[in-house]
Amino acid sequence: MRNIKLLLEYDGTDFVGWQIQDNGRSVQGELEHALGEVTQAEVRVIGAGRTDAGVHARGQVAHFHTASDLSAEQLKRGANALIGEDVRVLDAQEVPLEFHARYSARRRSYLYVIVRQSHPLLRRTSWLVGYPMERGLLDRCSRELLGRKDFRSFCKNGESNDNTVCTVLDAAWAEEGEILRFEISADRFVHGMVRALVGTMVDVARGYLDFDEFLGIIVAKDRTRAGTSAPPQGLVLETVLY
Amino acid sequence: MRNIKLLLEYDGTDFVGWQIQDNGRSVQGELEHALGEVTQAEVRVIGAGRTDAGVHARGQVAHFHTASDLSAEQLKRGANALIGEDVRVLDAQEVPLEFHARYSARRRSYLYVIVRQSHPLLRRTSWLVGYPMERGLLDRCSRELLGRKDFRSFCKNGESNDNTVCTVLDAAWAEEGEILRFEISADRFVHGMVRALVGTMVDVARGYLDFDEFLGIIVAKDRTRAGTSAPPQGLVLETVLY
Repeated sequence: MRNIKLLLEYDGTDFVGWQIQDNGRSVQGELEHALGEVTQAEVRVIGAGRTDAGVHARGQVAHFHTASDLSAEQLKRGANALIGEDVRVLDAQEVPLEFHARYSARRRSYLYVIVRQSHPLLRRTSWLVGYPMERGLLDRCSRELLGRKDFRSFCKNGESNDNTVCTVLDAAWAEEGEILRFEISADRFVHGMVRALVGTMVDVARGYLDFDEFLGIIVAKDRTRAGTSAPPQGLVLETVLY
Repeated sequence: MRNIKLLLEYDGTDFVGWQIQDNGRSVQGELEHALGEVTQAEVRVIGAGRTDAGVHARGQVAHFHTASDLSAEQLKRGANALIGEDVRVLDAQEVPLEFHARYSARRRSYLYVIVRQSHPLLRRTSWLVGYPMERGLLDRCSRELLGRKDFRSFCKNGESNDNTVCTVLDAAWAEEGEILRFEISADRFVHGMVRALVGTMVDVARGYLDFDEFLGIIVAKDRTRAGTSAPPQGLVLETVLY
């Protein structure tokens, strides 16, 4: 048995998300089907992050086991010939059997893009936030995210026994003209965390929530407390490090 | 009568181009229809550059005359409410009657994006060039474009009495990972010029044309001589200066 690591980019617009679901096209499903054809055997693909419907990836990582003797490059080309143009295997490499795309990952980085005015060329990859925001409050909020914390308040559909402790290694906003970019890296993320964080920080910056309330939400560890989630199309899984 | 200057962004994917044509949706047609509704009068919109089908714009400029007493901001909002999401009026300003979007323009800048591997998030805004290229030859070619020259060889459907002399002010390739960006500024461009230049430079870089043949094409002033045109989706009209 061999273990193959994949580096993937996809436009999440027309996917129901990473994970196989009954209601439409998933990235995992598309890959499993294509690799099944190429290897003539059933294939199970495990991804580093289970991105939601509409969320994009520039550097998703996945792995699968196969008995096929095709080279990693042949598997990459074969899969790319069978999957939609909105998802690509950028790289494929044989790795030790112990490598696990989700459990071996040590650092994941996401980017969230906000535009202050509608931009047609960014409409599939950004969130339009037209109302006034106090930029300094975004920075103050993002600094509070750093370090090891329980992010249960920002976890979607979390079970009470799930581990919701994450170590945020970097979290910062940058501004370029009418575009705001939020980059965040952590050892792990809970479900829906980046979108809930972005939506809540924007609520603070527009004066809908106080900064002190934001601090209260973090310590509350209560998923009913966070603000609105930012929409999926602004989010990109950028890199996964091992 | 008032003269209104518009700054426009559009995703050219689903347009037959800037100019009104019988066979589909044009940017000019979409704007004229919307501004006609808003001002309750017939409106003729003149653009700085007549981009082809599939070509994008981040900074197209246009103007139109109107007897309406709506403010520029009201005209902008009214138009944006009626046009598709793939085109936006980013700004509208009242300007002197003498201002003409095409004839007053002094400098236009285009960007052409080439990717060396298929990238789903860039597939609507880049050209995939998978074969090997000698990067240094792209730079040598682009330096030959600078200055005042007759670009007839790179003019699509040119009439023999058309003026095809342009002054190229800047022309340079830049590389960022697997992405190649060609930026070119000139006082004016002839029809299809950037795509013909990019396609011909790529022919040289892949060894399909000699560098000396490239020099010969420039001086030939013969539109049958240039190489293949690069496809439209890699091209963006970036800015127009007055």
